[in-house]
Amino acid sequence: MDSSSSSHGIEQLQQGCYYEWMSLQAKHIVNLKEALMKNDAHHKLEELVGVIVNDFQRYAEKRSELSNRSCSSYFAPSWNSSLENGLLWMGGCRPSSFIRVIYALCGSQTETQFSSQYFHKIDGNENADESDGFMSELTAMQLGNINELHIKVIHKEDKITKQSANMQEDVVDMPIAVTAYSRDLVEAGVEVEDALDKHEEGMAVLMAEADKLRIETLRKIVEVMTPVQAAEFLLAGKRLHVSLHEWGRVREERRFGRAHAGAVAGGAGAGKPKRSATC
Amino acid sequence: MDSSSSSHGIEQLQQGCYYEWMSLQAKHIVNLKEALMKNDAHHKLEELVGVIVNDFQRYAEKRSELSNRSCSSYFAPSWNSSLENGLLWMGGCRPSSFIRVIYALCGSQTETQFSSQYFHKIDGNENADESDGFMSELTAMQLGNINELHIKVIHKEDKITKQSANMQEDVVDMPIAVTAYSRDLVEAGVEVEDALDKHEEGMAVLMAEADKLRIETLRKIVEVMTPVQAAEFLLAGKRLHVSLHEWGRVREERRFGRAHAGAVAGGAGAGKPKRSATC
Repeated sequence: MDSSSSSHGIEQLQQGCYYEWMSLQAKHIVNLKEALMKNDAHHKLEELVGVIVNDFQRYAEKRSELSNRSCSSYFAPSWNSSLENGLLWMGGCRPSSFIRVIYALCGSQTETQFSSQYFHKIDGNENADESDGFMSELTAMQLGNINELHIKVIHKEDKITKQSANMQEDVVDMPIAVTAYSRDLVEAGVEVEDALDKHEEGMAVLMAEADKLRIETLRKIVEVMTPVQAAEFLLAGKRLHVSLHEWGRVREERRFGRAHAGAVAGGAGAGKPKRSATC
Repeated sequence: MDSSSSSHGIEQLQQGCYYEWMSLQAKHIVNLKEALMKNDAHHKLEELVGVIVNDFQRYAEKRSELSNRSCSSYFAPSWNSSLENGLLWMGGCRPSSFIRVIYALCGSQTETQFSSQYFHKIDGNENADESDGFMSELTAMQLGNINELHIKVIHKEDKITKQSANMQEDVVDMPIAVTAYSRDLVEAGVEVEDALDKHEEGMAVLMAEADKLRIETLRKIVEVMTPVQAAEFLLAGKRLHVSLHEWGRVREERRFGRAHAGAVAGGAGAGKPKRSATC
């Protein structure tokens, strides 16, 4: 009960933290787009990319603090659509999906059927200098590095997934299973509450580990890329986020005929994204 | 839009199906308890166990039908507490957790610190015939079989988990990533809607596979056990369900100060469980 009073209103705090992050992401999108269209100097782009990656780290730290007091809500947040929650991995996107975004966007023109010019001209940018190195022009060495990273990231993801599976299984152990079995009256009692608290604490640690992997992956991707490529990659990830959040919300509204919490602020593009290739 | 009109109200149907199943589970608990306390004949217990396993299969089939029209909602249902959704695996409990329940309950007395008599006397049942074979008296051969099953089930779970990870990653591919990236205006369009539909259909297939594994595991466990043990096991699973549903709801109310959907009908014991050692 001690912990409950201190965690009262925790969901409001978590939701506030999320929407704050989403507004910041909308700003990131505008800044990235402008910088790419203006053909900003490399050091300026580099700086922007650095700021954005650091912002993500700060968000993860804040989330981690808040998850200490109630982690479960991060595994299927009420502010997400079902579509987004169905795509969730450890309270966020799969780090491996960052790399899939790169593959999808840079992918060989023969496969993806659009020319590299397509990316040079996002939203009407005609001034791009070919030598800046766009995503569609990743070198063989860059792609090799990214592929290597992909394999490592998948391996680390699988490890965290396995830990989470073990923790889920562990819940069905002493004292929880025995307390539930031994009596009809469903009251948790101190022992069970402690076990559930411990479970949630463990999940919070795992989520922090997953966030660490997300940030680490992001940093490594950005390291491999030129500043223009990194800016394009971040823009792609953020737009994908915003889009998935919005598409999920619209699909849900159409299906269930209800307005979702996520619809409150911001329209197309400026919405509050969440999952899948966050950064 | 065609599919949206036919799926309007689908969440109500899914929720209705869930609550129906929960009421049936409450009945199962009463029936199992009575049968165990009355020391019913083996063939009668066997019949009851068979009915209950078949009921679960029917529930899974119904759920599968409904998930065809909207699968995402099953991956973090609104009728579950955060705690339950955090424990969810492929829209339900981990089949391996069935076996963990057995270990927890039958577990060597030295480890679990309660005597086998404890289980013989659930809710005051003093008439139990020792020769009926209670869970705490699983033979070495039975435990060996169950252990073998555990390993196989974990292997199959991991395979499904991996498939789901791949599907999550695939979302961040063509055409979704490219559509999101290529414009500011967040509108899905036919191509993206089709891709998201396809993703949800794939997830529905995976959930059905997971349900199949849950049922298969349940049947195999029951086969290894005596009728009394099987009835005890099912009772344990169902009570654990009810309890986790109720505990999650209470914890959520205490934390967020909100009444959860799951609290509507039924009090202690007769509630509407969901996850973790369902059967």
